[in-house]
Amino acid sequence: MTETVKYLLDETRIPRQWYNINADLPEPMAPVLHPGTHQPVTADDLLPLFPRGVIEQEMSSEREIDIPEPVRAAYRQWRPAPLYRARRLEQALGTPARIYYKYEGVSPTGSHKPNTAVAQAFYNHQEGVKRITTETGAGQWGSSLALAGAMFGLEIAVYMVKVSFQQKPYRRAFMESFGAECIASPSNTTQAGRAILADHPDSTGSLGIAISEAVEMAVQRDDTRYALGSVLNHVLLHQTVTGIEAREQMAMADDEPDVVIGCTGGGSNFAGLVFPFLGDQLRGGKTMEFIAVEPAACPTLTKGRFAYDFGDTAHLTPLTKMHTLGSGFVPSGFHAGGLRYHGMAPQISHLTDLGLIKPRAYEQLECFAAGLEFARAEGIIPAPEANHAVKAALDEARQCRETGESKAILFNLCGHGNFDMQAYTDYLAGKLHDQEYAESEAAMALSGLPSV
Amino acid sequence: MTETVKYLLDETRIPRQWYNINADLPEPMAPVLHPGTHQPVTADDLLPLFPRGVIEQEMSSEREIDIPEPVRAAYRQWRPAPLYRARRLEQALGTPARIYYKYEGVSPTGSHKPNTAVAQAFYNHQEGVKRITTETGAGQWGSSLALAGAMFGLEIAVYMVKVSFQQKPYRRAFMESFGAECIASPSNTTQAGRAILADHPDSTGSLGIAISEAVEMAVQRDDTRYALGSVLNHVLLHQTVTGIEAREQMAMADDEPDVVIGCTGGGSNFAGLVFPFLGDQLRGGKTMEFIAVEPAACPTLTKGRFAYDFGDTAHLTPLTKMHTLGSGFVPSGFHAGGLRYHGMAPQISHLTDLGLIKPRAYEQLECFAAGLEFARAEGIIPAPEANHAVKAALDEARQCRETGESKAILFNLCGHGNFDMQAYTDYLAGKLHDQEYAESEAAMALSGLPSV
Repeated sequence: MTETVKYLLDETRIPRQWYNINADLPEPMAPVLHPGTHQPVTADDLLPLFPRGVIEQEMSSEREIDIPEPVRAAYRQWRPAPLYRARRLEQALGTPARIYYKYEGVSPTGSHKPNTAVAQAFYNHQEGVKRITTETGAGQWGSSLALAGAMFGLEIAVYMVKVSFQQKPYRRAFMESFGAECIASPSNTTQAGRAILADHPDSTGSLGIAISEAVEMAVQRDDTRYALGSVLNHVLLHQTVTGIEAREQMAMADDEPDVVIGCTGGGSNFAGLVFPFLGDQLRGGKTMEFIAVEPAACPTLTKGRFAYDFGDTAHLTPLTKMHTLGSGFVPSGFHAGGLRYHGMAPQISHLTDLGLIKPRAYEQLECFAAGLEFARAEGIIPAPEANHAVKAALDEARQCRETGESKAILFNLCGHGNFDMQAYTDYLAGKLHDQEYAESEAAMALSGLPSV
Repeated sequence: MTETVKYLLDETRIPRQWYNINADLPEPMAPVLHPGTHQPVTADDLLPLFPRGVIEQEMSSEREIDIPEPVRAAYRQWRPAPLYRARRLEQALGTPARIYYKYEGVSPTGSHKPNTAVAQAFYNHQEGVKRITTETGAGQWGSSLALAGAMFGLEIAVYMVKVSFQQKPYRRAFMESFGAECIASPSNTTQAGRAILADHPDSTGSLGIAISEAVEMAVQRDDTRYALGSVLNHVLLHQTVTGIEAREQMAMADDEPDVVIGCTGGGSNFAGLVFPFLGDQLRGGKTMEFIAVEPAACPTLTKGRFAYDFGDTAHLTPLTKMHTLGSGFVPSGFHAGGLRYHGMAPQISHLTDLGLIKPRAYEQLECFAAGLEFARAEGIIPAPEANHAVKAALDEARQCRETGESKAILFNLCGHGNFDMQAYTDYLAGKLHDQEYAESEAAMALSGLPSV
């Protein structure tokens, strides 16, 4: 058997700073606008939603931002995360490429999400917040915030998209095991939810609706704030521990990536791995290829418009310039629940617009096939979201076999598939199909973009 | 927030030898007997079942047995496993006790089972075996052997107890994801299965029946052998990497355990953590308390008889002297599927008979409650099996609060509960009940013990 090669840092190497790519952007980003006035938002505008520590990070252009010691202490439960050289996979593929993957599935919830959940819980706790509301689709983010709430003694209320709430009772049990409250959305606990239910009593919900409910709940109470698991600058910032560790681990392997790959839903796991490397490039370092992989049925970066849009359905959030399929767009029911968002992180959208990130879309069946190929070689079953990154890495490695090039390919294995075995069960039984991109629905959703 | 304290060894500290407690037993064990002749079995008797490398280990009394390099290379994917000081739990309990747990949930299948699966796959592969058959109850062992088969290029056929096969489709998908075949037992692929189905067409199966089927399948083909996931000496031997690492990690913490705890089904995770410490004690080291925790509904050690019995229902296996509830005993349907075996590892039975191990039984509801208490403090949801060890550790720690003693309590958190969220869902919904120990059924099963 080919040897497992793992690069593991000791705890002293948990990063002491997050990396903020805003410091190195070749062109500044478009400002975030107030939904009412269409003027750039101020920190004060955001205070009903977020604690000040988080707002400062959202707006910061400091390159390095200190990670508070209690957050590093929480990270210590699972970080530093291992980086693997996928030697058995390389052998199975017969490729001269060197394939590396950073494995974030070692966290207690099985994905990268706790990297930001514990940070956001810390800042809320520090500023006296008692309760955080949020939304969750597939359940990864809600589970991670539930965990962070248990760690920092905060109440957590999670609005879970109703179709997932019904299909994934285990995710609800997971959140409740950590003491969080989990509410099916749309619900009758909010105006936004009641309005939807009045028109569509059978609504199965969407991420946009759940965000509206969570935001409405947060702004109503003084002791309550809101948390988002992706998209925003501060979330992407918190995820950079992944790339900072990976950079050091690549040096341990005496190697440097030529290609860096991540899947993109809201963009946070991609940014977490990519931004530290991309920042090096922007400051004059080695030129690399950065590939953002999205599902063909929700092709935000490859087919969306780069425009100002709302983050939610009820239009309560600020306006950000991003790649979007329209805030009313509801993608078809494919199995990578974490990649079903209508928008994309503004930072990733901006960098894609500048040509620094190359987006790519895949169908779901080819992603599951790639995931199984990976699992049989490397021993880990990836989350369906992560399969998109796996598929791109396999394609790059196979291309190296054709050309004879020996590229170093690094990808983010952002979570394991332990909670997604229903999808694998269906795939193995031949019950899954590729899902169409609902182009006309996107066109309709895009026609409703705010005029800014 | 109280700090997470994790003791992590680097890869060079993956043990180079397994520890064999047979070298240090104060009295020798009763011999294993041939089921036909009732004479002690020879290595040749076992050759249809196991590869020679495994049989030598089963019968060895060497204290240290070298771990082959390819097995250490496979271990490297997840080992050394972390040892945690449960400071947040200690704080929540207000106990002066120092609580440590060894966490085996970091393996790709989420439990300790791969420690022996990769070793058994290696020896089979080395001796030219092409195919391994086995049984699985809850699915942890079958998943782990499926993983090991993928690593060493072996075909794996898993007979899965029918009730679990139906209730846990995700486990089947997990095994199939690694390329293994998964067959509901009783099946019509074996004589043993057909005999059961003829009498009981609706049989939901048992571990004893599934073992009979797997053994029958193995002895029929020259290129096929059988593997067992617990009970036997060589399986317990392979698990000692857990305790050997934990001993070094306790030294890093500048501490020594006073109490060492594990849950017991067949006994392998318990032995894995306990035997290296117990061996030290037997050779004149510190005296510790060793607590084996079992479910009250399958109380093998606390209520079973210490006698010769078969390992399976069809009486194909050798006879071993062990604590048993009778090979025909089928426990009621509690949720710790890994603890439902009628027998107990002969080594653990022997050491319990000698008074060196203290058995204890708990009901399932109190174990789930303990598991949630642990999860909210430490951030990891334990497997229902592991909850038994958690419950005992909590009880010991609470007793320290009463007495003011500051004991060092070490337990094996042998797996996470990611695949057991149905049980937690039912527990949180108030749908779980304690299960009675079917005493009259055990009496009937025990009346059928072989006369040796």
